[in-house]
Amino acid sequence: MIIVFKKGVTEIEQFLMYFKNLSLDIFQTELDNQIIIKLVGNTFMVDDNFLASFKDIEKVIRLDKTYDLVKYKGEYLNIKIKDISIGNDSKFCLIAGPCAIDSYDSLLETTTNMNRVDVIRGGAFKPRKSPYSFQGLGLEGIKILNQVGKKTNHLVISEIINESDLKYFEENVDIIQVGARNMDNYQLLKVLGKSSKPILLKRGLSASIEEWLLAAEYIVKNGNKNVILCERGIRTFETSTRNTLDLSAVSLIKKLSNLPIVVDPSHATGRYDLVEQMTLAAIAAGADGIVLEVSQDVEGLKSDGSQTISCKRYNNLLTKIKKVCEAVERDF
Amino acid sequence: MIIVFKKGVTEIEQFLMYFKNLSLDIFQTELDNQIIIKLVGNTFMVDDNFLASFKDIEKVIRLDKTYDLVKYKGEYLNIKIKDISIGNDSKFCLIAGPCAIDSYDSLLETTTNMNRVDVIRGGAFKPRKSPYSFQGLGLEGIKILNQVGKKTNHLVISEIINESDLKYFEENVDIIQVGARNMDNYQLLKVLGKSSKPILLKRGLSASIEEWLLAAEYIVKNGNKNVILCERGIRTFETSTRNTLDLSAVSLIKKLSNLPIVVDPSHATGRYDLVEQMTLAAIAAGADGIVLEVSQDVEGLKSDGSQTISCKRYNNLLTKIKKVCEAVERDF
Amino acid sequence: MIIVFKKGVTEIEQFLMYFKNLSLDIFQTELDNQIIIKLVGNTFMVDDNFLASFKDIEKVIRLDKTYDLVKYKGEYLNIKIKDISIGNDSKFCLIAGPCAIDSYDSLLETTTNMNRVDVIRGGAFKPRKSPYSFQGLGLEGIKILNQVGKKTNHLVISEIINESDLKYFEENVDIIQVGARNMDNYQLLKVLGKSSKPILLKRGLSASIEEWLLAAEYIVKNGNKNVILCERGIRTFETSTRNTLDLSAVSLIKKLSNLPIVVDPSHATGRYDLVEQMTLAAIAAGADGIVLEVSQDVEGLKSDGSQTISCKRYNNLLTKIKKVCEAVERDF
Amino acid sequence: MIIVFKKGVTEIEQFLMYFKNLSLDIFQTELDNQIIIKLVGNTFMVDDNFLASFKDIEKVIRLDKTYDLVKYKGEYLNIKIKDISIGNDSKFCLIAGPCAIDSYDSLLETTTNMNRVDVIRGGAFKPRKSPYSFQGLGLEGIKILNQVGKKTNHLVISEIINESDLKYFEENVDIIQVGARNMDNYQLLKVLGKSSKPILLKRGLSASIEEWLLAAEYIVKNGNKNVILCERGIRTFETSTRNTLDLSAVSLIKKLSNLPIVVDPSHATGRYDLVEQMTLAAIAAGADGIVLEVSQDVEGLKSDGSQTISCKRYNNLLTKIKKVCEAVERDF
Repeated sequence: MIIVFKKGVTEIEQFLMYFKNLSLDIFQTELDNQIIIKLVGNTFMVDDNFLASFKDIEKVIRLDKTYDLVKYKGEYLNIKIKDISIGNDSKFCLIAGPCAIDSYDSLLETTTNMNRVDVIRGGAFKPRKSPYSFQGLGLEGIKILNQVGKKTNHLVISEIINESDLKYFEENVDIIQVGARNMDNYQLLKVLGKSSKPILLKRGLSASIEEWLLAAEYIVKNGNKNVILCERGIRTFETSTRNTLDLSAVSLIKKLSNLPIVVDPSHATGRYDLVEQMTLAAIAAGADGIVLEVSQDVEGLKSDGSQTISCKRYNNLLTKIKKVCEAVERDF
Repeated sequence: MIIVFKKGVTEIEQFLMYFKNLSLDIFQTELDNQIIIKLVGNTFMVDDNFLASFKDIEKVIRLDKTYDLVKYKGEYLNIKIKDISIGNDSKFCLIAGPCAIDSYDSLLETTTNMNRVDVIRGGAFKPRKSPYSFQGLGLEGIKILNQVGKKTNHLVISEIINESDLKYFEENVDIIQVGARNMDNYQLLKVLGKSSKPILLKRGLSASIEEWLLAAEYIVKNGNKNVILCERGIRTFETSTRNTLDLSAVSLIKKLSNLPIVVDPSHATGRYDLVEQMTLAAIAAGADGIVLEVSQDVEGLKSDGSQTISCKRYNNLLTKIKKVCEAVERDF
Repeated sequence: MIIVFKKGVTEIEQFLMYFKNLSLDIFQTELDNQIIIKLVGNTFMVDDNFLASFKDIEKVIRLDKTYDLVKYKGEYLNIKIKDISIGNDSKFCLIAGPCAIDSYDSLLETTTNMNRVDVIRGGAFKPRKSPYSFQGLGLEGIKILNQVGKKTNHLVISEIINESDLKYFEENVDIIQVGARNMDNYQLLKVLGKSSKPILLKRGLSASIEEWLLAAEYIVKNGNKNVILCERGIRTFETSTRNTLDLSAVSLIKKLSNLPIVVDPSHATGRYDLVEQMTLAAIAAGADGIVLEVSQDVEGLKSDGSQTISCKRYNNLLTKIKKVCEAVERDF
Repeated sequence: MIIVFKKGVTEIEQFLMYFKNLSLDIFQTELDNQIIIKLVGNTFMVDDNFLASFKDIEKVIRLDKTYDLVKYKGEYLNIKIKDISIGNDSKFCLIAGPCAIDSYDSLLETTTNMNRVDVIRGGAFKPRKSPYSFQGLGLEGIKILNQVGKKTNHLVISEIINESDLKYFEENVDIIQVGARNMDNYQLLKVLGKSSKPILLKRGLSASIEEWLLAAEYIVKNGNKNVILCERGIRTFETSTRNTLDLSAVSLIKKLSNLPIVVDPSHATGRYDLVEQMTLAAIAAGADGIVLEVSQDVEGLKSDGSQTISCKRYNNLLTKIKKVCEAVERDF
């Protein structure tokens, strides 16, 4: 980290003391009447904005990262949950299921109609922008998910929105999901840092990659190192897809972080007819798994689920996933 | 609300039943083999996305709003808190104070050095993107804020990030703030809907105006009608200001909603040297008040507070605020 | 196209006449005192915004597209240029070369060091945001490109920025490129519509998919049906990549348009270390080809070209491209 | 400007020579095995991206601006055109007229119905995203504009889209407008740099403030110092207004540049009912003038012009403009 003081500033003792307290090594020089210092060590402890707000400082230049625990240091984290492992060196992971859980029977049917699935997903608490929209079955939904998981011998995942539900989630699901809208609910992240369950952390709608990794750092710093990142599209000016799936983020995360990363093309695009190619593209981009909305229902008269694919489509997709995995030398 | 069915679809009984259950009036016709229905009544109960996902439906066209309780119906809400009133027909409201509360003495000094202020603001729980940044004094900060408010006979406001702190907030502050990062924490909004304290609801970084009003609707629907909106900039591609202050949103909100709206130029721009003109522009745009970061400290050697203005600047600004208020016939 | 008139409006003769003049079929009905008409035929001739600005009209709802000539109607366009064909049913197309042309020798060296390339790219007119930056060799660069193309028997492509250069371009290059910054320079598009050379049309930095297709429609409508679209990233809030590569746009374009589409991951990401995976992801997303910055130079001491890859990396990438093409059943 | 070389890099002669050729003063030091140099002088000549692409360089930190000729150096430019002066120290400038010129009579009627206007605006060449939309009257429109200007003794402005029309524009209009979609058409900017007519340069839809000022720098560097900036909204995720009017950009430009800046709330918001307050807000933000779509027509049966205000509304607005100008001590 390099700090350039304003021209003519000579008294920098206060700053040096602050950096010493953070146990940083300090190198100092002067150029054209500007003091320049370089800080080496745990610079992620330094708050750039705080420093930049001092009137004696002209520029704060970060040479290293603002996060540490989730930083890539030569080895990737592979998270083991029962028989499954998720991460860069694990098999490509398939997380699939309906948007919202509506009944035991339909969830069971969807699950048994998928030729392969590693983790069953299903929403019980749905963060909905309108208070008049269906908000999910709640704890009853979590219970159904648990039962179907046990019955079919699958891991299960669902989204938590209230820290007071944590105990119930820990007893009933294998992975706890943090939705995009809660990615910067730091209070929730801290509480989940105390949990023993792996956390799937969706990227916020307008979160930069750095902010997303710092959100993961919150969880890890509080004690839970098992975080799975999930890219699900960012908000841009383009409206022909619901959000803009940022697949370069996937490749970039692999260079920045040791954490597993999966991709959710269903929510990102909001269009079932783009899900297939975006799944294959995600594999090519280096994703460790996929999160898909799949439902038996959508084949019926009732709905063609604007972002949900049918079990039949899903099973056809599996064949293609396998081929692309082979092409990029990814275990499937 | 108009719903256009796909060409050739003839069986729409299920849909009609659904709309009847919502007590909507239904008008029906057919054009070129496409059934078209118009729904009249509480269409905000209808979930557009849910409908649009049905394969028999081609288009869902909303003629009215997705929110109801916060909709402008000819009269603006003026929220009375002790001696103060906030709203379209009230005096322009001044909410000011330091970014974070650091001590009783400095908060008192800042407060007493401001020539006029209606509500003292100060952060005790700071949602910070890095877990290594200072997170505020917590409940201790709220207590200090309460004491300074009592001592100087001012209303006080601070941000809540954890629903379990609600009781303490209700005992110690006059207005509870929901930060931009919690605007779509619907769980928190529901809980605040049960509170008797007015809520200042900041706009989320990537929240559309409709989503913001629906967030307010969550609070009002749960029982608390006293919501104050706060525009604080949205996230765009432009990086020379921290966010992009959206002043057209202020004018537009006045046409859409009965709620008071205030503007926070400090957080929006992140630059103290733009705060003054953005405050005056906010008045001209129709804002009901302003939220400013003001601190005595910034005049010292320590910092010039990249987004905080000094008490001296603040007091000079008051004179200009008064003039622009007069020009646009706003009570001050 | 459906047009909903305001409640109570009864005189719509003027509008009907306007639509009749456009040779549209008109269906008319009324619901709850609102006249609703449906237009069938060449509705792309209708200007939605113009209509929506009339005070008697409440809503204009488009059921079909605003473009026609570039619309997908069951068959994809495959553009033949000498021995090469570009399009959905053609071999995956490799467009590669240095960012800017600097000399005959270095361009020749780069070209001969690539194991396979279909079209050599190289900038001679560089639209640079600063007037102080190197703006390219100009016509001299185009000449070098032509010579290297002839010498090595390759097609060549370069960007035009000035319509008065068109004749020279037509004599010297095989494909004329319109850069992102000129995508909505409609004057230039119209002129290129008169050319016999295929046009590679980059997506504008903030162009919606619809606007991009309408830009292509400008060219085709003026007489030149051979347009190749090129996705090269859009401008978003994320700054860790230069732009955000929108690969869902590629899949979506395949559903909307008959035009070939290629992807430029070099400009989109601005990082050579993401280019490889984004190339593979583009293939999986359905792209018909790739545009890559490749240069012999970057292996030297001089530069590692933040977005340019070396010929060596490029050749390694070719092997992977081949594998992913096979996996998604794309000719290579 | 500060350049930090990678750790261990010792041979920097090539770079030093490059900087010497640009006549920059060079200061050099070393910190923890990293060479650091500071460049003083005309650093706007340095291409940051070019430098940053060298593998021996770790960071390029700009302490000053990338533009020079349009930089604020203590004095604002006031552009005199006949009786009018536009700039920070001039009277608030009123530029108003219809979106597109349709006839001599209607333009004359609109003009004579406005109580005060300094420059008549009207489009003759309309850059339209659809090739099927009305593209304006062309040169005939320019002629009408010129005639009405002469008849009513007003300055006139219109948008140029084709450099070959320059001579005709120079003969017929007083100010030449560059539209948002041509802001980064550098070829056009260079040509306009040779003109003797003042240029009104609209901000591009996704142009950063720096890119906008660099576009102005293109014009000035080519010989025409009379550039007027025009903020007209940027493209963001928010769709309830057409674009997002960035009024903080106005205040910021006043700190960065000596150029006059005006605001176009009509195009920015796309809603006539927001135009009034956004005009007043623009004054408070420090704008030097306003560009408004005004038309006599909109009072008739034909249209309520989604973004155009009537002459009557305009005249009422004038009274308010005057008051706000007085409040912020701006001549009117």
